[in-house]
Amino acid sequence: MPGPGKIRGELALIEHIRQRSGAVESPLLRLGIGDDCAVLRPPRGSDVLVTTDFTLEGRHFRRDWHTPESAGHRTLARGLSDLAAMGAQPMAAFLSLAVPRSLAATAAGRKWLDRFFDGLLALAALHKVPLAGGDTSEAPTDHLLADITLLGTAPRGRELRRSGARAGDLLYVTGALGGAAAELQSLSQGKRPKKHGEHPQLFPIPRLVVGHALLKRRLATACMDVSDGISTDLAHLCQASGVGAVVFADPLPLHPLAAEHGKEAALQLALHGGEDYELLFTAKPSVTMPRRIAGVPVTPIGRITAAGPILLERSDGSAEPLAPAGWEHLR
Amino acid sequence: MPGPGKIRGELALIEHIRQRSGAVESPLLRLGIGDDCAVLRPPRGSDVLVTTDFTLEGRHFRRDWHTPESAGHRTLARGLSDLAAMGAQPMAAFLSLAVPRSLAATAAGRKWLDRFFDGLLALAALHKVPLAGGDTSEAPTDHLLADITLLGTAPRGRELRRSGARAGDLLYVTGALGGAAAELQSLSQGKRPKKHGEHPQLFPIPRLVVGHALLKRRLATACMDVSDGISTDLAHLCQASGVGAVVFADPLPLHPLAAEHGKEAALQLALHGGEDYELLFTAKPSVTMPRRIAGVPVTPIGRITAAGPILLERSDGSAEPLAPAGWEHLR
Repeated sequence: MPGPGKIRGELALIEHIRQRSGAVESPLLRLGIGDDCAVLRPPRGSDVLVTTDFTLEGRHFRRDWHTPESAGHRTLARGLSDLAAMGAQPMAAFLSLAVPRSLAATAAGRKWLDRFFDGLLALAALHKVPLAGGDTSEAPTDHLLADITLLGTAPRGRELRRSGARAGDLLYVTGALGGAAAELQSLSQGKRPKKHGEHPQLFPIPRLVVGHALLKRRLATACMDVSDGISTDLAHLCQASGVGAVVFADPLPLHPLAAEHGKEAALQLALHGGEDYELLFTAKPSVTMPRRIAGVPVTPIGRITAAGPILLERSDGSAEPLAPAGWEHLR
Repeated sequence: MPGPGKIRGELALIEHIRQRSGAVESPLLRLGIGDDCAVLRPPRGSDVLVTTDFTLEGRHFRRDWHTPESAGHRTLARGLSDLAAMGAQPMAAFLSLAVPRSLAATAAGRKWLDRFFDGLLALAALHKVPLAGGDTSEAPTDHLLADITLLGTAPRGRELRRSGARAGDLLYVTGALGGAAAELQSLSQGKRPKKHGEHPQLFPIPRLVVGHALLKRRLATACMDVSDGISTDLAHLCQASGVGAVVFADPLPLHPLAAEHGKEAALQLALHGGEDYELLFTAKPSVTMPRRIAGVPVTPIGRITAAGPILLERSDGSAEPLAPAGWEHLR
């Protein structure tokens, strides 16, 4: 896997990653780091799901805002969340990592990298995902560049797609919205993260158990994760399904970190903030939806309409178009 | 799959990629670009092989040396070569691509990107590999960043590993060596690539048919691809197998572009040049090895010894240690 342009000590880094990645064992992984490819044996009767996601310094995180553990955690969380969105169970992760000279060449830099792996591997261990391979390189500039590939499995033909929503379905969201954007705002103002409490920006929680439950219990007609903000993500879901939607402003579950900003600002963070990595899904109105799945709140926030616009309905009954307005987070 | 930090026109780019990637259809690909994950159904009785490889501007290619078609071709070729090295057949490719503003914002830049995809998709079509997903982002600097993930299949438990070489086995290489490094030298001196002829640096040929034949016909005990130069790669193979080796200088197949530099310089390019993406493999001495497989020359170049050093034996019978000395190609 490694090619030209090696960093000094790259083999040592690979060996270090290999040793640390050995922490998670999986019967599905027949051959991990160290050969030209990894070898996996998916369980009988399952399809293989694949997603890849960049985590680029300066685009998806900043070394002066995010802790190294957070950068590592977020790198893996983005991929896990894509699996969760389709109801899949993770099988293995692959990390391509380009390391700037400034991180590879100094003790402080290597410590940073170590903590990056702490964050990534802690989340991997939590979900029993082996780090099965990847690539390493020296970065061409002073930006750490990561690309995560996740493989997962789902029962054949049963994955939760974006395209299954139908007019009349109800629209749900897990957890709370706006927290990731609110915490990012606070980090960008130089505030240090609190030691305790939730960190929706620094340590988002991929909803793997919820996603898999939706699939297994046949609760959802369509599903995706909230990466760009529901104004953008719902537009994708509606486009894929050929439907419209109405979102009710009132029941939207606002994250406490967003709510601190007042009701209207919190609503904007919830609609457009993104990076919450909650699940946005639809279900037939006849389904009795649990209020919580695996301890995570599930809130009805709207309904699917025939092909047409996406509207936001206020408590006074007024409706306005809900236009996609995902943020450029690090600007 | 797309997250925050979108380039202007990213959705247009994704749509463009989706339309172009539709050129290759595969019965194994149940769902391609456009949802949270792609969905694949591997054939019965097969394992799934996975590899990821960076192609970073300034590390793996330069816009002033490589044509856009070459950069695209090389991005995919690196991953295909890893599949070839294990005897696997490609199932699907995933491309994470971070595009600098300079390429996204100008007509000339978009033309460059289009030609990058021309190169990548031409190779994909040749090997019938669908581009099934990936990620796009704006690059944090003026460097194009690509990471390719390849999934392949091999009959269960039959993949060609690096670790199967045993003392007494013969060592073989496909094609010719040193060409990629020789052509890179010429490009770095400002020479334009010839219109006709082979381009081992610009358009390396992944040896998929040969690799699969080695697996199917049970010809090889161990195999890998030559990405860093055989001095480095053979060291990996020997380490994985717990063996030593002797390489014979005389029969090493020198690429004509390397041979132009004279015999000794050509030998150094062949041993340490790398990026040839030929297959380096071992076989039991009892095996009758064809001289060509699928039209590609197969040359015996040494033998495997009990655990010990790796030696280079000259035609006069003298032997010297063959130390890994892969090049920093773009320095």
